[in-house]
Amino acid sequence: MNIVLKIGGSVLFSDNEINTPLIKKYTETINVLKKTYEKIGIVVGGGIYARNYIKAAKKLNATADFQDFLGIEISRQNARLLISALTNVYDEPPKDYNEFKKASSMFQIVVLGGFQPGQSTNGVAAIVAEHLKAEYLINLSDVDQVYNKDPDKFKDAKPLTEISYYDFYKIIINNEQSPGKYALFDLLGFEIIKRSNIKLLFLNGKHPELIHKALTGSTIGTVIK
Amino acid sequence: MNIVLKIGGSVLFSDNEINTPLIKKYTETINVLKKTYEKIGIVVGGGIYARNYIKAAKKLNATADFQDFLGIEISRQNARLLISALTNVYDEPPKDYNEFKKASSMFQIVVLGGFQPGQSTNGVAAIVAEHLKAEYLINLSDVDQVYNKDPDKFKDAKPLTEISYYDFYKIIINNEQSPGKYALFDLLGFEIIKRSNIKLLFLNGKHPELIHKALTGSTIGTVIK
Amino acid sequence: MNIVLKIGGSVLFSDNEINTPLIKKYTETINVLKKTYEKIGIVVGGGIYARNYIKAAKKLNATADFQDFLGIEISRQNARLLISALTNVYDEPPKDYNEFKKASSMFQIVVLGGFQPGQSTNGVAAIVAEHLKAEYLINLSDVDQVYNKDPDKFKDAKPLTEISYYDFYKIIINNEQSPGKYALFDLLGFEIIKRSNIKLLFLNGKHPELIHKALTGSTIGTVIK
Amino acid sequence: MNIVLKIGGSVLFSDNEINTPLIKKYTETINVLKKTYEKIGIVVGGGIYARNYIKAAKKLNATADFQDFLGIEISRQNARLLISALTNVYDEPPKDYNEFKKASSMFQIVVLGGFQPGQSTNGVAAIVAEHLKAEYLINLSDVDQVYNKDPDKFKDAKPLTEISYYDFYKIIINNEQSPGKYALFDLLGFEIIKRSNIKLLFLNGKHPELIHKALTGSTIGTVIK
Amino acid sequence: MNIVLKIGGSVLFSDNEINTPLIKKYTETINVLKKTYEKIGIVVGGGIYARNYIKAAKKLNATADFQDFLGIEISRQNARLLISALTNVYDEPPKDYNEFKKASSMFQIVVLGGFQPGQSTNGVAAIVAEHLKAEYLINLSDVDQVYNKDPDKFKDAKPLTEISYYDFYKIIINNEQSPGKYALFDLLGFEIIKRSNIKLLFLNGKHPELIHKALTGSTIGTVIK
Amino acid sequence: MNIVLKIGGSVLFSDNEINTPLIKKYTETINVLKKTYEKIGIVVGGGIYARNYIKAAKKLNATADFQDFLGIEISRQNARLLISALTNVYDEPPKDYNEFKKASSMFQIVVLGGFQPGQSTNGVAAIVAEHLKAEYLINLSDVDQVYNKDPDKFKDAKPLTEISYYDFYKIIINNEQSPGKYALFDLLGFEIIKRSNIKLLFLNGKHPELIHKALTGSTIGTVIK
Repeated sequence: MNIVLKIGGSVLFSDNEINTPLIKKYTETINVLKKTYEKIGIVVGGGIYARNYIKAAKKLNATADFQDFLGIEISRQNARLLISALTNVYDEPPKDYNEFKKASSMFQIVVLGGFQPGQSTNGVAAIVAEHLKAEYLINLSDVDQVYNKDPDKFKDAKPLTEISYYDFYKIIINNEQSPGKYALFDLLGFEIIKRSNIKLLFLNGKHPELIHKALTGSTIGTVIK
Repeated sequence: MNIVLKIGGSVLFSDNEINTPLIKKYTETINVLKKTYEKIGIVVGGGIYARNYIKAAKKLNATADFQDFLGIEISRQNARLLISALTNVYDEPPKDYNEFKKASSMFQIVVLGGFQPGQSTNGVAAIVAEHLKAEYLINLSDVDQVYNKDPDKFKDAKPLTEISYYDFYKIIINNEQSPGKYALFDLLGFEIIKRSNIKLLFLNGKHPELIHKALTGSTIGTVIK
Repeated sequence: MNIVLKIGGSVLFSDNEINTPLIKKYTETINVLKKTYEKIGIVVGGGIYARNYIKAAKKLNATADFQDFLGIEISRQNARLLISALTNVYDEPPKDYNEFKKASSMFQIVVLGGFQPGQSTNGVAAIVAEHLKAEYLINLSDVDQVYNKDPDKFKDAKPLTEISYYDFYKIIINNEQSPGKYALFDLLGFEIIKRSNIKLLFLNGKHPELIHKALTGSTIGTVIK
Repeated sequence: MNIVLKIGGSVLFSDNEINTPLIKKYTETINVLKKTYEKIGIVVGGGIYARNYIKAAKKLNATADFQDFLGIEISRQNARLLISALTNVYDEPPKDYNEFKKASSMFQIVVLGGFQPGQSTNGVAAIVAEHLKAEYLINLSDVDQVYNKDPDKFKDAKPLTEISYYDFYKIIINNEQSPGKYALFDLLGFEIIKRSNIKLLFLNGKHPELIHKALTGSTIGTVIK
Repeated sequence: MNIVLKIGGSVLFSDNEINTPLIKKYTETINVLKKTYEKIGIVVGGGIYARNYIKAAKKLNATADFQDFLGIEISRQNARLLISALTNVYDEPPKDYNEFKKASSMFQIVVLGGFQPGQSTNGVAAIVAEHLKAEYLINLSDVDQVYNKDPDKFKDAKPLTEISYYDFYKIIINNEQSPGKYALFDLLGFEIIKRSNIKLLFLNGKHPELIHKALTGSTIGTVIK
Repeated sequence: MNIVLKIGGSVLFSDNEINTPLIKKYTETINVLKKTYEKIGIVVGGGIYARNYIKAAKKLNATADFQDFLGIEISRQNARLLISALTNVYDEPPKDYNEFKKASSMFQIVVLGGFQPGQSTNGVAAIVAEHLKAEYLINLSDVDQVYNKDPDKFKDAKPLTEISYYDFYKIIINNEQSPGKYALFDLLGFEIIKRSNIKLLFLNGKHPELIHKALTGSTIGTVIK
């Protein structure tokens, strides 16, 4: 049985500082998961340093794909930091699907950042989950739960504990003002988890101890299935 | 001034045979474009051989990402065939964004197939166009033009010669039954061409001579801008 | 104890279709061999798709080495298909000797296509067998047995069950009209199996179940030693 | 005639922000140098983000080499940012000497970060200068000039405009408390510039316009030769 | 117009010393050829150091392919030495066909050693000549000329100035006692030069100045065509 | 518990011959160490063949870094020879730190040569020891012991059995005439073993059986700690 964690870049930083105590908590959680799961994929986001390089590149008139590329490289750097604290782990964040495929055939744990401009780390997490035939892809960010409407706009938005792929699709399609801004999850990633029937679980990323709870029966966060 | 061609896999084959005469026509067209454009990106699809490997892998119970991967490798093989008939061209279809970035800094022409499972070659073409700051991404397939409705379902569907990004977005969102089946263009690719303001031109892929016509002022196909 | 299978491209296809049922049989046979053999090398040929790309490249005036290269890439694609149905297997067909060497030090099974223009997949199979110190290299093709003369030309040609390296050398040297067309086995590969004393066994490739029979004592096909 | 710039990580940041205006000034300076110099090597340091990852890795009990490695990756990220604003430049910071060697044979400009744990980016700059047969290696940092004694400790320390390799050696040997802390320049790098007779020029890194001045005759900073 | 030189390992050494003066002469000859030929391929053999590593590996019970591999690596080291004295040259001996293909699309000169166990550097030279559409492959070794019989065995053996592919084939087939020992040229390489109609010229490798003479009309050595 | 051996190039050769019997002894010693140590790093020097290529490249006017590079490649060739006689070993000498990091996470034994011009194989051995958290780095060369003064110059120089990092630093600093010639150990390597508190043991490299003795309690050679 395999599992994938997607850790949002925002939860890895407190302002300009790397949130080392939280990263330590994550490594402890992962060490617990190692006893249960045969393969563990972990995909890490970019956070504030990524945004700073992107802003700087934009000011220097870099193309949008190059800006994305700089953000991806920081997500890979964050992945390296997590790698430095783990064992049974591939020693580098794979830079594309092919390298991930090879790495996951040799190591229990592979930690990744982004793959390619124009695509979010959620998309990467979905591919990783599909390749590992993971039952769950757990999305750890500052989103505690999915709401039936955008909670920033509607006072009567209600948190959901479970939701179908179809209803989730309608939310992410309507949730956004402009195409391409997928606040919750991108469509590329969505398509993959749907076609391979992977459960997507949203949890509060500041509390990695919730992962174990959720996997052992507690009703926390929102599950899409 | 740079340009990107996306050549659909379907146009490269006649039934089970590789359509060599058409590929020859494409090389002639590209040799004309070489005189005008500084950089040319060409992205090639998979076609029937790709579908046959995907079908076989499915029967052998491969995961969906691996099926995609086999299709991508055939799109890269088709790219090699085109490369064999060109000059001033990078000698291999880059296998990811990083290799493409390097190749395009050294060669006038780069021919590519797909990059990564879960993503269409349209998405690759969009990234390539963004990196090259291309004015046009020309989509060459069996789709002559974009219609205001799905022409297979609605008798009164009308072909369009020009359409805004916003209206095109509504078509590709509604056009599909299930999320992820982007008959015309995928959302990942759409987001990229929109954010970088690249014109997307649909042309009949069986007539590469139309490319030159369209670029020199004729109103053919449909342009999204 | 190690073993190498060479599966001819012709047996993988029925006309234009990939012969998935036969590939399934091969995976079953390999799963049996996995229990007996420490390391298994499998080299796969190109078949009809390879020939189609080669023909197309020739029409496009590609050099002979590039034509070969396109055929090799399809043999590697066929190898990927087999990989998709196996476990304990290196996830990609190695693209040269160095990658094979590394792969075989980490995985029980390595599946390969060709390496390099001007050289047949028989030559690759021989190098693989030498590196693995394999006792047998089993050649699976549409050749059931080796004959003392060319059976297409001589009515009195007799099938052989066993033959010395020296006599086999005389057959492959005389068997061919023009140098380089090694109907049975190429001289590069022959030299390698001879210098390392590897037994070469010819079996009918449409019946992978014969492999187990032959290895457990039945007198089938022709063995060169 | 070739030249190498070593840009200290500290000058690329203002507190926690990337100093984009200064980077812009550097690109303007480099665009001027491009007209005079055939090959330009640029080596960039890590700065505060590098230090933050190193600190975090230390808290997570990573080995010292892995801490260095994380710092090196940030110096490479800084190099990417500079690359995004340049033309005629290799598109990636080479990750080792071999890649640098290849890159510099193809492009006018190569921008690098660090190579390897235990070695400073000064060492990298020296190797780059040696390979390019550069006349000057210009060290741009918060060190305006070299002093005859440590100016932090001795009030009567005097700035020098020129100094021999031999005297510089004595300064860097005595300057440090513990072996390995080479405040000014490390011994590995020193050995290389000495053996290949490369002039080392220290300049204030906050004012890239000084580079042009110094190279066209003004007596600024300190030159070691 | 392109050309390929094959420089035998034996001519690069005098006993245990590298024959630097001769290598210098070769670089001078190559600098002359650079003015006439668009692309130049140079393939270098292993010589005595290669043989010493092979002997040592054999004593250590390495497999035959690994012995070959060590010899190949020394041929590549010899190639590096030649590279160090040339300009407009790819900076490394390509380790396989794919790398060669890429290198030759970017540089006027590519210097190579061997590619792969079981195959001589003559085979590499033939592939290189085919890819470059070279008119001549010049074989520079201690063989001055081809004889109609083995001159070591037959007193009445006569040197030839010209010979057909067919007659050359008969010589190399009969010349050897055991299959695989191709004193003059291996069959793999022969097949390639024949199928692509490349002229093969044998010259005394101790006198690189003969190359220019032979190419400008003098009847020296033996040409196979 | 992990260990690193640094085997000097000089001990691998007797005049111009590879010292195969000694290499055999080393493999026997390593096979004993394999039972005790979890990970073993082995770094091999260049020896006389390295010096010959360096001399030849110098005569051909190669840059100093390229001369170093040729020497490094021979140290890697020597590493390959040792690899050919070992099991549970990574199949190639890693060409940089990144490859070493990956290799050591997968194999019990990694054999290396040099990494990069301007840096000795002692520096490589130190990085390897740091990454492996090795207790000992054993330096095997023609230096039996460290002396309190240079024994070639001072008759009253006394051999030491144990010495502090600080005293060793003073010796290697004073021991040399010109900066950069670190007869015993280079400063880069010294800095690393000091910062990570690795014991450095000097032993006579012609007697690998001393390794086991020293590690099991005998007072041989000189230990720096």
